[in-house]
Amino acid sequence: MAYKDEQLNEEKVFKDPVHRYIHVRDRVIWDLIATPEFQRLRRIKQLGTTNLTFHGAEHSRFNHSLGVYEIVRRIIYNFKDREHWNNDQRLLCMCAALLHDLGHGPFSHSFEKVFKLDHEYFTQQIILGDTYVHKILERVRPGFSQDVADVIGKTYSDKLVVSLISSQIDADRMDYLQRDAYFTGVSYGHFDMERILRVMRPKEDQVVIKSSGMHAVEDYIMSRYQMYWQVYFHPVTRSAEVILSKILHRAKELYENNYEFKLKPTHFLSFFSGDVSLDEYLKLDEGIVHYYFQLWQEEEDEIIRDLCERFINRRLFKYVEFNPNKQMNEWMKLHKLFLEIGVDPEYYLVVDSSSDLPYDFYRPGEEEERLPIHLLMPDGSLKELSRHSEIVESISGKKRTDHKLYFPKDILEKISDKKKANEIKEILYGQGDVFDVK
Amino acid sequence: MAYKDEQLNEEKVFKDPVHRYIHVRDRVIWDLIATPEFQRLRRIKQLGTTNLTFHGAEHSRFNHSLGVYEIVRRIIYNFKDREHWNNDQRLLCMCAALLHDLGHGPFSHSFEKVFKLDHEYFTQQIILGDTYVHKILERVRPGFSQDVADVIGKTYSDKLVVSLISSQIDADRMDYLQRDAYFTGVSYGHFDMERILRVMRPKEDQVVIKSSGMHAVEDYIMSRYQMYWQVYFHPVTRSAEVILSKILHRAKELYENNYEFKLKPTHFLSFFSGDVSLDEYLKLDEGIVHYYFQLWQEEEDEIIRDLCERFINRRLFKYVEFNPNKQMNEWMKLHKLFLEIGVDPEYYLVVDSSSDLPYDFYRPGEEEERLPIHLLMPDGSLKELSRHSEIVESISGKKRTDHKLYFPKDILEKISDKKKANEIKEILYGQGDVFDVK
Amino acid sequence: MAYKDEQLNEEKVFKDPVHRYIHVRDRVIWDLIATPEFQRLRRIKQLGTTNLTFHGAEHSRFNHSLGVYEIVRRIIYNFKDREHWNNDQRLLCMCAALLHDLGHGPFSHSFEKVFKLDHEYFTQQIILGDTYVHKILERVRPGFSQDVADVIGKTYSDKLVVSLISSQIDADRMDYLQRDAYFTGVSYGHFDMERILRVMRPKEDQVVIKSSGMHAVEDYIMSRYQMYWQVYFHPVTRSAEVILSKILHRAKELYENNYEFKLKPTHFLSFFSGDVSLDEYLKLDEGIVHYYFQLWQEEEDEIIRDLCERFINRRLFKYVEFNPNKQMNEWMKLHKLFLEIGVDPEYYLVVDSSSDLPYDFYRPGEEEERLPIHLLMPDGSLKELSRHSEIVESISGKKRTDHKLYFPKDILEKISDKKKANEIKEILYGQGDVFDVK
Amino acid sequence: MAYKDEQLNEEKVFKDPVHRYIHVRDRVIWDLIATPEFQRLRRIKQLGTTNLTFHGAEHSRFNHSLGVYEIVRRIIYNFKDREHWNNDQRLLCMCAALLHDLGHGPFSHSFEKVFKLDHEYFTQQIILGDTYVHKILERVRPGFSQDVADVIGKTYSDKLVVSLISSQIDADRMDYLQRDAYFTGVSYGHFDMERILRVMRPKEDQVVIKSSGMHAVEDYIMSRYQMYWQVYFHPVTRSAEVILSKILHRAKELYENNYEFKLKPTHFLSFFSGDVSLDEYLKLDEGIVHYYFQLWQEEEDEIIRDLCERFINRRLFKYVEFNPNKQMNEWMKLHKLFLEIGVDPEYYLVVDSSSDLPYDFYRPGEEEERLPIHLLMPDGSLKELSRHSEIVESISGKKRTDHKLYFPKDILEKISDKKKANEIKEILYGQGDVFDVK
Repeated sequence: MAYKDEQLNEEKVFKDPVHRYIHVRDRVIWDLIATPEFQRLRRIKQLGTTNLTFHGAEHSRFNHSLGVYEIVRRIIYNFKDREHWNNDQRLLCMCAALLHDLGHGPFSHSFEKVFKLDHEYFTQQIILGDTYVHKILERVRPGFSQDVADVIGKTYSDKLVVSLISSQIDADRMDYLQRDAYFTGVSYGHFDMERILRVMRPKEDQVVIKSSGMHAVEDYIMSRYQMYWQVYFHPVTRSAEVILSKILHRAKELYENNYEFKLKPTHFLSFFSGDVSLDEYLKLDEGIVHYYFQLWQEEEDEIIRDLCERFINRRLFKYVEFNPNKQMNEWMKLHKLFLEIGVDPEYYLVVDSSSDLPYDFYRPGEEEERLPIHLLMPDGSLKELSRHSEIVESISGKKRTDHKLYFPKDILEKISDKKKANEIKEILYGQGDVFDVK
Repeated sequence: MAYKDEQLNEEKVFKDPVHRYIHVRDRVIWDLIATPEFQRLRRIKQLGTTNLTFHGAEHSRFNHSLGVYEIVRRIIYNFKDREHWNNDQRLLCMCAALLHDLGHGPFSHSFEKVFKLDHEYFTQQIILGDTYVHKILERVRPGFSQDVADVIGKTYSDKLVVSLISSQIDADRMDYLQRDAYFTGVSYGHFDMERILRVMRPKEDQVVIKSSGMHAVEDYIMSRYQMYWQVYFHPVTRSAEVILSKILHRAKELYENNYEFKLKPTHFLSFFSGDVSLDEYLKLDEGIVHYYFQLWQEEEDEIIRDLCERFINRRLFKYVEFNPNKQMNEWMKLHKLFLEIGVDPEYYLVVDSSSDLPYDFYRPGEEEERLPIHLLMPDGSLKELSRHSEIVESISGKKRTDHKLYFPKDILEKISDKKKANEIKEILYGQGDVFDVK
Repeated sequence: MAYKDEQLNEEKVFKDPVHRYIHVRDRVIWDLIATPEFQRLRRIKQLGTTNLTFHGAEHSRFNHSLGVYEIVRRIIYNFKDREHWNNDQRLLCMCAALLHDLGHGPFSHSFEKVFKLDHEYFTQQIILGDTYVHKILERVRPGFSQDVADVIGKTYSDKLVVSLISSQIDADRMDYLQRDAYFTGVSYGHFDMERILRVMRPKEDQVVIKSSGMHAVEDYIMSRYQMYWQVYFHPVTRSAEVILSKILHRAKELYENNYEFKLKPTHFLSFFSGDVSLDEYLKLDEGIVHYYFQLWQEEEDEIIRDLCERFINRRLFKYVEFNPNKQMNEWMKLHKLFLEIGVDPEYYLVVDSSSDLPYDFYRPGEEEERLPIHLLMPDGSLKELSRHSEIVESISGKKRTDHKLYFPKDILEKISDKKKANEIKEILYGQGDVFDVK
Repeated sequence: MAYKDEQLNEEKVFKDPVHRYIHVRDRVIWDLIATPEFQRLRRIKQLGTTNLTFHGAEHSRFNHSLGVYEIVRRIIYNFKDREHWNNDQRLLCMCAALLHDLGHGPFSHSFEKVFKLDHEYFTQQIILGDTYVHKILERVRPGFSQDVADVIGKTYSDKLVVSLISSQIDADRMDYLQRDAYFTGVSYGHFDMERILRVMRPKEDQVVIKSSGMHAVEDYIMSRYQMYWQVYFHPVTRSAEVILSKILHRAKELYENNYEFKLKPTHFLSFFSGDVSLDEYLKLDEGIVHYYFQLWQEEEDEIIRDLCERFINRRLFKYVEFNPNKQMNEWMKLHKLFLEIGVDPEYYLVVDSSSDLPYDFYRPGEEEERLPIHLLMPDGSLKELSRHSEIVESISGKKRTDHKLYFPKDILEKISDKKKANEIKEILYGQGDVFDVK
């Protein structure tokens, strides 16, 4: 029997708290899960530093990747009465679902920003490069790995397949909303996925939603909105991200200035120099990063030492609401005062902004566009969701941005020049409350 | 106001998936949670290698410690109408609950066995030594840290307080059963804790259970039984534990034989030599261990290299049912054959046994005794649970042991001496099935 | 001890699927629950005919009334650190919560419309009249029953107390949304009530919400919105309501025309004549109504016979979207055609409209106004919710109305004049789909 | 297309709180659900008087019947890879599942005991008699209704089919345990049904369980045990059952003594005389019974009046533990004393016993035998569950009986002969506590 048609003797299952069970019958899927590249996802948290805010959020990207696969498996199963999908298409969807996040590294967001990396690039590299994953995909048929890479890269010709993995209501989002809600314990993030799956219809180049299921989709959109503001953009998490980024910045800066680290940061060298090979990339996981951060708590350099100590022991920065566009004056004054009291504002006075676009219709030409959601009306026509749902319309395309200024309140309390300290506090607390960061 | 009476301006809460919210009002508790020693628990998984079997089981000991604190807080709250507890007793219980697992290191079970350590010893050290935790406890009143240590060590004079933290139905067990069930996603581990808390009554030197709540307690006992056999003793988890132990063994052996590691295993040296200081102990967490295991994948020594590669990439050993007491002959034959094919049986042929005592009544003189559960009968008398409950009686004191023999099936497939390979297989598979380890 | 201060020896609990347990300590509450007037609520479904759409929705008003009491009990408990409420106020709130729906009869909505009744009037009657409930309330202190009636009637002087029972975010709504979601099984209706209770603050004459809890309130508002359109206004439920109303109409009409019922409808006579005494009102429950409907299946009158048979056996009307304001012509044509084919349009061609106002701010002078939700800002000021929440703003004050035309599709299929039948169908199905009513 | 092969255009679903959705594709199933005989099950509570103890338990037999159908549908779906079942067998199973409780009347237990009825007899009558259900079944093929009746009656030749509907672990039990747990809100009754369905294997004449799923089955058995003692045999429910039975007894007695009822109890006459036609049987539902009980509150006869008033207003009897075998003397004394104080012991001094056999292996010759549960061992052999599971073994075949003596405490409080009252109380309360019946 051809490898691509091979079925396991007995269906295997993974116990999953979100989807109850994840079912695997295809040998290909089973083999992909067993690769070192996929197992590596166990060592990378799905939500990075969020567990410093919500202690339950310790789940890995391995978790989420299995979940996305399972949702796609169920969607395809539901479709099978309606459309003949051949086995190649079926496997293509499921492999792309399973592998879509393969290139994520530890604390992706901060690493990508500081070291100018792109996890999607590494996903492609892993799928197409000299890896176990690649070998398995090519056993399906020559060229299969390229097709999987194209589906994930959204350049694959069959847009219906692409839309299962990335659209405004794809398997990726449906999994992470539910999963992140489950592990954080928040009451948002629940919606009737079973119903959404039941009202999904394949339609030429996209998946559309029977209009009778509109309310379930509204609920999903609202879940997303709430999860962004309650979980993903939580200021305590952002405070930890700020410190993390500053550690990476400082380490890079020290390296560039030929600072002598007590232990040579072997794993980081290629990141510092900006030339990361696939092999080096794959070696970095959260354990490695934590290892260095722990070592750096004992470095000579005071800034990296302090920041690492803060990150490891969760002594985070506090924050005030702060709009950099309107409060440039205050910011400049603070900057100057920080310099005067000997606290480097580059590392200890940080503006951070979050924004989200909860649901947006198609705007051609934009880079990050995702396909909009179309409703399938009783008469067979399609209608873009926000034209039918008042709630969605009300939040469509509204970008809300939230700015905060982060700083180490504890240090300010201890500076000896009380006059300057008071000036600083006046500016900061004139801005509003200093929220106690949990 | 005295430190011990200080309340936070506003109650703080942690969102917790198991207890919904964890409530903190006391400044002392808040400060303890913020210490580096307590924050360290975030970097140690509650269930060690179980996440290789149940991918959701990635929750930390930080999680569980907060949970135990919350349960004790609720119990004390329920008691307050019945019994006057002064604030010192109240804080004592809550601090002991919060800190009871403070001395756990990464993969405690294996580390303790291989390096002859005892996490309870380190818990005492952290509470009584030169630590942030110690300083905070002594601020409550001189001698308070010793009392907390005594409660955790079960030597404290007020046995009622001890029984909240360690008995057959203490806050520790009630939290971990529910929490481990939640994160693994299994359907066992649920019982009506709210009801159990409602029927708990303080009674001289122990907490007893109103007999009307007996069925809820039965349900709790059965949950425990099921969790042991379905989760805690799962053979795949044990397979990972076997490999982990063998890595530690091998590293120690190499060290003792003056093997030259590519990178000096600084963090492990004191463990190898058997003289671990508190400071060194606290530096070891799962990230550090993973760091070394990753490095060791590139060691010269073939055994440590192979075992680490197995652990990191989850290529575990397979297993057969095997009773070492009855099958000594087979074991000796296998041992000899493994030597002959050049596979070191010391590392690749491992018998592992699990056992559990789901509920046991008091047997004086035994070391690990936990207080039995007493029912408070309508006439005010006490009755030991297993004398009243048929189900509990049926499993009382029954120690069930389960033995398995672990080995690397993949290696056996590849050895060139087919005759010997077949002899080995015959013995192994004559024992029963080789279960496919997920 | 005064009756009002009497506590039960042991706290009593009711197992409740929604709030886990309902706790009773006050003798007064216990005694009120035991009265025949309160027990009667067991025989009246919370959601009338909704169980014909969602088969789980068979829960009674007894259920809901206990739930509202429990929520108010918890709110008051949370307040007790902040505000001194005396025992009289506490009991007043809890009694009003428990008794607020006491005057509901079977299928309230239809009965009230057809017979021009008002359940709030009967609630007042039961509390103030010669009933067990009244006697118990007056034992608390003379005049207490009047105060309870005033709180429920929203005329009580302390508006803070009133707002617990009826505002945009009162205990009534919080209970029914969660309860109706639980019993129907829909995934809407969930929100983080525990958090909302934690951020509620008593503030002069109303309960306000700490602004940090805004997202939980948004979630609650959205739950309400979804429950209205998915459950409360479900067209199948409305179809059953339409038939129910028409049965009552027909019975009244027959009575007024001196029609001779096979069994004299004793329980209905005062409803027909429009002069219902409290005693007669209390005797009517769903069992009685069903009894008559079953009997009337065997009446001579064809219309009442058919309608009852439809209601009992769930042979409901089908429907099309229909806007009576814009489609008057079509309606008149249909009316005429129905007369011509001998199907009485009065009973078999029915327009029904639903509308809801998910959240509205205060508009003085309107009758049904409920207090708006105010956020308590960090600086101590109050801000009306929709001015702070984009989502709420987007749906504030938007009344959405949904009209449908109901008719017996089965009868149309069977009429002999095929030409007329086709004319009718053309008009109806030209309007859109005839949805299959489950 | 033959009727039996007809599929609905679009799959229909019922929202179900227990199984999430109930799926219907077959026209036959859809038509059966729409029959008056099946719709009648909406008017009969699944748990009779249990809602007087657990107020959430108001769900109907309609609910449960759909649930059993859904479970069987899923089992057959799981089987379809393993065994070729033709469409006739498939429909047969599903119809039998859907209709297995069709003959239940209101408060079956009491009615059957008092009037010597058997709901299984009526199930057969409805399926085979002149009913809508019968006509639909015969449209499948002549003789099909007889086959359905045989499966339900356990006389059908294919025992595999029978075992899906009635065995120790059939769809009936799996549904009611979960459903009754959900609606009462108790934490028992949960088990991993999805896993059990996955490990079920068709094996000649029965469904067996793969031994790897044994723990899930143990959990199911324990659920059942707990539900029996916590819910089904709850003494408050039994108190209501006692009163209900006594009302029926009294009504029958009055009828036999030619007592003149204010309103002729038309619906009951055939029950009194012991000759109930199918038509009369189908007319009786809970609404009708409640109607009469309400009327009888105003009867001349003091006993029926009092008992009905108790039942309607939930003024139940209290109880003490009482073993009729060992305490015959006391019982006789009480009997005499009751007569002396003018309280008829026939109606007011009632011993009631419960018993359950949580799991039993096959004992040929016994009437109520259900097939035992067999495990399918790795070597292909079968092993009866209790020989493999210690827990199950411990409760196998153990019949536990619980006796209670019920009486109206309120009446005893009011009798004028204080000496006799004290004698009675001494005997009763010497027996133990009088538990306050909630």
